[in-house]
Amino acid sequence: MPQRVGRYTINLPSRPVIIGNAAVVGKKEGEGPLAEEFDHIFDDTTMGEASWEKAESAIQREAVTRAISKAGIGTADVDMIFAGDLLNQCIGTTFSLRELNIPLAGLYGACSTMALSLALGSLMTDSGALGTCVATTSSHFCSAERQFRYPLEYGGQRPPAAQWTATASGAAVIKNQGEGPHIDAVTIGRIQDMGIKDANNMGAAMAPAAAETIADFLNDTNTKPEDYDIILTGDLGAIGSTLLKQLLEKDKNIDISAVHKDGGLMIYDIDKQDVNSGGSGCGCSGAIVCSYILNRLRSGELKKVLFVGTGALMSSTSSKQGESIPAIAHAVLLSCQ
Amino acid sequence: MPQRVGRYTINLPSRPVIIGNAAVVGKKEGEGPLAEEFDHIFDDTTMGEASWEKAESAIQREAVTRAISKAGIGTADVDMIFAGDLLNQCIGTTFSLRELNIPLAGLYGACSTMALSLALGSLMTDSGALGTCVATTSSHFCSAERQFRYPLEYGGQRPPAAQWTATASGAAVIKNQGEGPHIDAVTIGRIQDMGIKDANNMGAAMAPAAAETIADFLNDTNTKPEDYDIILTGDLGAIGSTLLKQLLEKDKNIDISAVHKDGGLMIYDIDKQDVNSGGSGCGCSGAIVCSYILNRLRSGELKKVLFVGTGALMSSTSSKQGESIPAIAHAVLLSCQ
Repeated sequence: MPQRVGRYTINLPSRPVIIGNAAVVGKKEGEGPLAEEFDHIFDDTTMGEASWEKAESAIQREAVTRAISKAGIGTADVDMIFAGDLLNQCIGTTFSLRELNIPLAGLYGACSTMALSLALGSLMTDSGALGTCVATTSSHFCSAERQFRYPLEYGGQRPPAAQWTATASGAAVIKNQGEGPHIDAVTIGRIQDMGIKDANNMGAAMAPAAAETIADFLNDTNTKPEDYDIILTGDLGAIGSTLLKQLLEKDKNIDISAVHKDGGLMIYDIDKQDVNSGGSGCGCSGAIVCSYILNRLRSGELKKVLFVGTGALMSSTSSKQGESIPAIAHAVLLSCQ
Repeated sequence: MPQRVGRYTINLPSRPVIIGNAAVVGKKEGEGPLAEEFDHIFDDTTMGEASWEKAESAIQREAVTRAISKAGIGTADVDMIFAGDLLNQCIGTTFSLRELNIPLAGLYGACSTMALSLALGSLMTDSGALGTCVATTSSHFCSAERQFRYPLEYGGQRPPAAQWTATASGAAVIKNQGEGPHIDAVTIGRIQDMGIKDANNMGAAMAPAAAETIADFLNDTNTKPEDYDIILTGDLGAIGSTLLKQLLEKDKNIDISAVHKDGGLMIYDIDKQDVNSGGSGCGCSGAIVCSYILNRLRSGELKKVLFVGTGALMSSTSSKQGESIPAIAHAVLLSCQ
C-alpha cells in the first residue's frame, strides 16, 4: 500500500516491477549515440503511414506491443494502460491503442508523460488496484513541428535555444511481482512558471520545475544526489540543464552535477547532429528510460536512478496570446532488480 | 485498499468521501432547467478575460476554489489534483491551476474527464496514497467551437445532430474520511470505435463506449439497472442516448430506459434553447455531477448513481485525415452519505 513520505513523495512498499520494456525510434535517433540501445529503428520516418500523426501512432503501438511481448504476456493480461502524447487531443495515443482493447487512462503531461504514466501505473499496482499495467508515451518530430512551430516545408530557421523533438516511443510493463527493475517511490510535481515566454527555449521554461521536484524528492526522502547513480531529467537540453544546476545550487544548495544526465543531451550527438540545444519530446525520455536506463537497472550495472520527466504545458494558442510557459516535472525512483 | 471485481471494475472498500463540490456555468447554462443547481452563473461569458481560452481557465479555477472552500479546507490541504479539458495541450487546466501550487496529474479523456478524474482520485485516496485530492474539468463553448469547428464569427450552420459545448466546470474534493457522498467503485473504459466519421455527431460515436462500460460494470458487479436511481451518461445528447439504449437492448439484453439520464439532455431545454441534439463538453457532465447529482446524494434524495462519463477521442486533424471517431467511457459509482 502506498505510503506518503514528507510533503510530496509517495513510497511504494511492494516495489512494483517493470517486467518488460521497449523503445523504438526514428532514423535520426538511430544515428545517435544510443543507437545500440533501442529495440527497433525505423529507417522510414513515415513508418509507412499516410500522415505524420498516423506515423506517431504506429511508433507508439510498436513500443507497446514490443514491451508486452518482451514481458512474456499478452494484451489481454494488461489491466490498464496509462498513456499520452503531445498531439492535440492526444491522438497519437488514441489511434495507437484503439485496437488493443485495454482500459485506458489518458494522460496529458507534455514531455513529462513518461514519468507521469510510470508514477500513476506503479501507484495503482502497489495498491492492488491493478495486477499488470503499461506506461507509455511517444513523440514524432514531424507531427510536433507542424503543430507547435511551422510546417516542415516552410523551412523555418531554428534558433540556438531550440530543441529537436525526438521521433521515439517508450513503453514499460509494470507488475505487482516478477523479475526486473523496481519503482520504489514517486513525486507528482506542481506547476512552476518563472515567466519564460520564448517557445523556442523550452529547457529554460522547464528547468525550474525540475529543480523544484528534485529538491522535493531529496528533501522528502532525506537523501542526497550522491545516493543515486543518475538523476535523469527528461529533456532540458543544454541550456535547461545548465539552468537546472544553477537553480539547485543557488536556491536549494544542492549540487547534482556529479550524477546529472539529461535525456535531451543523451539521445543525439549535439555537436554533430544539428539539434541545437538537444532533443526533446515525450518520446525522448520515454525511449531512453525504456532502453538505456531500465536495461542497465535490469543487469545491475545501475542501482538507483531518479528519473524526473519534464514538461512544458503551453500550446501554440497560449504562446500567441502572450502567456508565459508553465512547466511541470514528475519524479520516479527506479532501482535495480 | 482497492479490490478488483470481475474483469474491469475496481471496488473501493474505504468508500472515499466527496467532502465538497462546486459547479459554475455560463449565461446560457444559467438560463437552462438546472439554473438553481449551480454555485455560480457567469452572466459575461468572457469571465472578464481577454480570450476564450483564458475565460475557460477562469471558470475552472472558480469551480476548484469554490469546491475547496465548501469542503472547509485550503489549497495547501490538497495532496493532488486530477484535471483535464478539451483544449489543445489542456491549457484550460494548466492556466487554471498554475498559481494553486498543488501537485497535478494532468488527464486527457475528452468529455469523459470528470469520470476519469473522479476514478483516479478515488482509487488513490482509497489506497492511502492521498489523503485529500480534487477532481475537476471544464469546457467553454467559444473556445471549443473555434478549435474543433469554426470561429464564431463565421456563423457556421449547425446540423441537427450537433451538440452545444457547455460553458461549465465542476470540481469535487475527495477525502479518505468525512461527511458526504461516497465513491464505491470505478470502471476504466476501453476505446470503442464503430466507424462513425461525422464530427457533428459525437453522440453516435460515443454511444458504443457508454454501452460497453455500462455492460462491463453491471456484469462485474452482478447488478441490474434497477439497482440504481440513475445511470447518468455524460453528454450523449438526444441521438446518442437513443442509440445507447438500442445498443444495450440489442447487444447486451440490458434495458436502462427506466433509470437513464444524460447530462447533455439535462443542462439545456433542448426544445427551447437551440442546442440541436443537446449539450456536450467536459464541463457538461462535470457541472451536473458536481451540483444536481452530488447535492441529492448528500441530502439522501438519491441513493445510488452510476455516472458514466463519455468522451470522443478525435481531433480536428484526425477527422480531416479521414479517421473515424474513437470513443471511451469511464464509470464511477456514487452513493449517498
